[in-house]
Amino acid sequence: MGKIKVGVVGYGTIGKRVADAVLLQDDMELVGITANSYNYKIKAADKKGIKIFPIQGVREKDHLNYGIDSVCGYAEDLLEQSDIIVDCTPKNTGYKHWYEKHRVKAIFQGGEKEDIGTSFVSQCNYGDAFGADFIRVVSCNTTGLCRTLSALDNSFDVHQAHATLIRRAADPWDIYHGPINALVPHLVVPSHHGPDVRTIIPHLEVFTTSVSVPTTLMHVHSVVVDLGVDVSVDQVSNLFRDTTRVRMVYNSDGIRSTAEILEYAKDLGRDRGDMSEVCVWKETIGVWNNKLMYVQAVHQESDVIPENIDAIRAACNICGQTESILKTNKSLGIS
Amino acid sequence: MGKIKVGVVGYGTIGKRVADAVLLQDDMELVGITANSYNYKIKAADKKGIKIFPIQGVREKDHLNYGIDSVCGYAEDLLEQSDIIVDCTPKNTGYKHWYEKHRVKAIFQGGEKEDIGTSFVSQCNYGDAFGADFIRVVSCNTTGLCRTLSALDNSFDVHQAHATLIRRAADPWDIYHGPINALVPHLVVPSHHGPDVRTIIPHLEVFTTSVSVPTTLMHVHSVVVDLGVDVSVDQVSNLFRDTTRVRMVYNSDGIRSTAEILEYAKDLGRDRGDMSEVCVWKETIGVWNNKLMYVQAVHQESDVIPENIDAIRAACNICGQTESILKTNKSLGIS
Amino acid sequence: MGKIKVGVVGYGTIGKRVADAVLLQDDMELVGITANSYNYKIKAADKKGIKIFPIQGVREKDHLNYGIDSVCGYAEDLLEQSDIIVDCTPKNTGYKHWYEKHRVKAIFQGGEKEDIGTSFVSQCNYGDAFGADFIRVVSCNTTGLCRTLSALDNSFDVHQAHATLIRRAADPWDIYHGPINALVPHLVVPSHHGPDVRTIIPHLEVFTTSVSVPTTLMHVHSVVVDLGVDVSVDQVSNLFRDTTRVRMVYNSDGIRSTAEILEYAKDLGRDRGDMSEVCVWKETIGVWNNKLMYVQAVHQESDVIPENIDAIRAACNICGQTESILKTNKSLGIS
Amino acid sequence: MGKIKVGVVGYGTIGKRVADAVLLQDDMELVGITANSYNYKIKAADKKGIKIFPIQGVREKDHLNYGIDSVCGYAEDLLEQSDIIVDCTPKNTGYKHWYEKHRVKAIFQGGEKEDIGTSFVSQCNYGDAFGADFIRVVSCNTTGLCRTLSALDNSFDVHQAHATLIRRAADPWDIYHGPINALVPHLVVPSHHGPDVRTIIPHLEVFTTSVSVPTTLMHVHSVVVDLGVDVSVDQVSNLFRDTTRVRMVYNSDGIRSTAEILEYAKDLGRDRGDMSEVCVWKETIGVWNNKLMYVQAVHQESDVIPENIDAIRAACNICGQTESILKTNKSLGIS
Repeated sequence: MGKIKVGVVGYGTIGKRVADAVLLQDDMELVGITANSYNYKIKAADKKGIKIFPIQGVREKDHLNYGIDSVCGYAEDLLEQSDIIVDCTPKNTGYKHWYEKHRVKAIFQGGEKEDIGTSFVSQCNYGDAFGADFIRVVSCNTTGLCRTLSALDNSFDVHQAHATLIRRAADPWDIYHGPINALVPHLVVPSHHGPDVRTIIPHLEVFTTSVSVPTTLMHVHSVVVDLGVDVSVDQVSNLFRDTTRVRMVYNSDGIRSTAEILEYAKDLGRDRGDMSEVCVWKETIGVWNNKLMYVQAVHQESDVIPENIDAIRAACNICGQTESILKTNKSLGIS
Repeated sequence: MGKIKVGVVGYGTIGKRVADAVLLQDDMELVGITANSYNYKIKAADKKGIKIFPIQGVREKDHLNYGIDSVCGYAEDLLEQSDIIVDCTPKNTGYKHWYEKHRVKAIFQGGEKEDIGTSFVSQCNYGDAFGADFIRVVSCNTTGLCRTLSALDNSFDVHQAHATLIRRAADPWDIYHGPINALVPHLVVPSHHGPDVRTIIPHLEVFTTSVSVPTTLMHVHSVVVDLGVDVSVDQVSNLFRDTTRVRMVYNSDGIRSTAEILEYAKDLGRDRGDMSEVCVWKETIGVWNNKLMYVQAVHQESDVIPENIDAIRAACNICGQTESILKTNKSLGIS
Repeated sequence: MGKIKVGVVGYGTIGKRVADAVLLQDDMELVGITANSYNYKIKAADKKGIKIFPIQGVREKDHLNYGIDSVCGYAEDLLEQSDIIVDCTPKNTGYKHWYEKHRVKAIFQGGEKEDIGTSFVSQCNYGDAFGADFIRVVSCNTTGLCRTLSALDNSFDVHQAHATLIRRAADPWDIYHGPINALVPHLVVPSHHGPDVRTIIPHLEVFTTSVSVPTTLMHVHSVVVDLGVDVSVDQVSNLFRDTTRVRMVYNSDGIRSTAEILEYAKDLGRDRGDMSEVCVWKETIGVWNNKLMYVQAVHQESDVIPENIDAIRAACNICGQTESILKTNKSLGIS
Repeated sequence: MGKIKVGVVGYGTIGKRVADAVLLQDDMELVGITANSYNYKIKAADKKGIKIFPIQGVREKDHLNYGIDSVCGYAEDLLEQSDIIVDCTPKNTGYKHWYEKHRVKAIFQGGEKEDIGTSFVSQCNYGDAFGADFIRVVSCNTTGLCRTLSALDNSFDVHQAHATLIRRAADPWDIYHGPINALVPHLVVPSHHGPDVRTIIPHLEVFTTSVSVPTTLMHVHSVVVDLGVDVSVDQVSNLFRDTTRVRMVYNSDGIRSTAEILEYAKDLGRDRGDMSEVCVWKETIGVWNNKLMYVQAVHQESDVIPENIDAIRAACNICGQTESILKTNKSLGIS
């Protein structure tokens, strides 16, 4: 069987990382990307030899003028040439009808409505998405919560959980959004993240409170879980250490903050300095009465990239959960 | 009976506010303040006519050189002339032995060890401190938690509580401490704030997780309480509205962040733009199953100022809890 | 002669400060303010007893519902009852035609186009605006530059000047604008501030470069002046010390940053913690060859408030420059 | 001739980048690195197979306990096995006497005193350092100023220059230093950067003003140059475009801030997301009268890395300026 032909629609924070990750897979081929307008991201893609398919009408007036070599047709041509599209357009703009019309499968991101396709976190419900035409990789925060909570729920008896999400207010490149010096609670309770976890683990009662803070690097979750069984800190620590895409980080390594997690990712040679694993600080795991507490950090720019790659394999019936996760992890340097 | 003669030792963030608050009380007289070194805070105190008692040895070489008029003796003279000292020195430097030697009562701040005196939050345990020689006003975060949790515990049945403390990493004037762009979890669980609440409300099981974030304005607490009785959002909202030193804030007033709380405090004409009430956002109160969730903001610079004033009255047997709280509130513009 | 009746149109950062300042003048009466929508600013104005004149159509659906007592008519009524309006509406929305129609004088802010009225900085060109129907108080940055550059130009021979404006990216209450962690140069040279200085001091050649940075407190200007005469650091320092609305600040007082300037303003008891003087750090004044360098800080929220008050007196022919500046300074605590 | 054997003493922000860059050179061999204590940086170096030579006394108690495999001797052994050391220890701690004792050449960083060795910027004075035992690569800011000012001085007639340095207050990993929300001018004029430029270009009169701001990403320089000849914006723009290690950046590419420069560096696949070229915004170049203005950004973590590599070749008489710059640029992806 040939390689899966993958097109990427929307080339921003997630889109460019998905494209790079597709280039690293031996069972996939990157057909190209779309783009609405010319900018440094497109310029860099062009330098890498990625083929660019402008949205019709944009091509002449914009891209060609700037000397981009790799323009190879319009966005419709990308759809025709691809087996599957990864849609990385902004929140609530997934072009589902367009993909249906062109009879192409598609992976959507977590900003889309729940009913756009099968909600997906690789290590939780890969099988549910096997052969699906439309899959929705849930948001970075939901993915991060699912990774640790599903591990806990499989090993112990999770009654309820609450997470306070301390959210980075803007991505590193985003100079437009604040706050610069304020804490901004989300004024709807619970925030949408709790219900979103239940699209993946339906029986789990999880509530979330969300506060935006002036940082660009990572989200941090303060999680409290009501357990039905007695556990020790070591049991939880060992469980997380053995869970894929969860990384334990340690004060004794000098990793005391989100900044040092990302510095370590750069030191490890990770592409763009990304840390796609959810990171749990060993020293924050605590157990009192029936309550387990821990603090984890989620890299909003990259933690869903492995899920997008796995979702492509699931949608196209390429291989099973274990094989896909292993292949993806190896290609992205996740141990 | 004459006015209580109050001296302030340590003239920083808390000390200068306590001094200003003492000046507003009709049953107190500010004898003066001490200071280690000359700076703009001392210059401003001098302009206000506050008497300055340098630490011995500091006086000649420093204060007098800068033209401060109000130097009236050494720190020992302040102790001799005062009925009670409010010690606002940095964490773990409360001069208890010195006060004992000079046979003067003293109020300490929350950075001191628990056994330095009677831990104190006005609306929780004023009576415990009546006539005490040494009182410890607990920290800003502990005070904030006690105000709302004691109200809940008195009206409903609080089994356990967990709070995630999203801490301002430095005060507004502090240009030395970071982080500038990172989230820094406190790597000991639970953080000390939980146990500290129990110095005030001994039977309450409360655990806390603490994360420092790059802001200077206020701390924010995400609180989750396990209740033994059914309550509605309105019951909790009404309870908080009727609780002294708790202020409900509303999205419908345009108060969506810590920044807007402090802007409102300025608009109200509050001295230094302070907000000494704990602020709970109405829209963040939620109830699911037996769990109550809410988000509150604590102004670290000012929320313990009313407690310091009440503690002076309690230590000196001036009046009872209700009368003191009313007098203090009125003088500080707390409705 | 009776008091001047002043109306304030637009009740934001500047409008609320102008209203408060008008209340402090013995020759002015605040008729009231307008407002587009209900929020905490209006709530606080109402608590102070300020009369509120909603924009028509807004009144019923919004203000009255929230229990505001002081609604006294529509905005048109405010115009009818006022001798002069201070227009503090956002950039480029000054309602000049409306004021012409109602035959009321008006003071505009610096965001309006230059030709809306006589550009104005009290200590530079008060006389130019005497009796004028329409005056434009120039922006906070232009006002700050004019105060120091006009003093230098009057005493020494200024050939050219360049200022790098390190701009606070958002006001303290503004949680919407970034950047959170980036430096953003203004990509037009020179920035508009240089030409704007020439609306006040026409013969001065001044160029400006502007960079936005992630802070909310004050702008900082790094100024370099080519002089035609030899000067010493002390001459410049003495000149600035003797110039109204310029304040020298000192490392020896512990004032090393914009944060400490505003902390000092709070310690001085300034309303809202405002610092309406331009602050020059003594230690940053340097002279090399024919070049003078200095660094000054401008409080964007308040430095134009004294100009607005003086502009009212100028427009209404109340008194001369020296008397108005003295009266305004005294009322606002400027020494 | 064999490869130059390079040891790196001090493995922080600069040391780890120098080590990585040495690994990319075909005429150099990395002997290893020293380290004072175990942390994530050492852990990552170990994973890359870099040999670690602890400072004596540190070894047993620290490194070996953490399972580091690559400990190969003490720091003295590193000196014995190396032809040249790159000393990347913190400011003012360069171990010159130690290197003299072990008769090994050394490259120091810009935090050391001027007389420690030949001050060095590759494109300005490579020849001065040819065969030198001790070279001092000047600081990131000085290097950045020298690159553009030397180009201007060679092509046009630079009379004087002034630069306002808007400094990132802490590196991305540094969670300890502030300010969080303040602007902090350097209270000595001129700042040391101006004189430091003259260690490289002795005849150039350049003065600098420095202000620290709450960002971690890059420094920004607002430069004003008094020229002796008439130039056009295009001439300057073309000159910079043709100058090595100077990169023109464009609003039309969507690069409006330091954040977007570093995002582009990540998109280009640069190691650690570094941008070692000085970046000048095209739109900020302006000419008025005899004054040239421009704004440039300097990546403090990486802009001196190419100089360190070139300095190794200069010290060891390997090749001339042009050849070294070309080899270094090619290895680091600088076009």
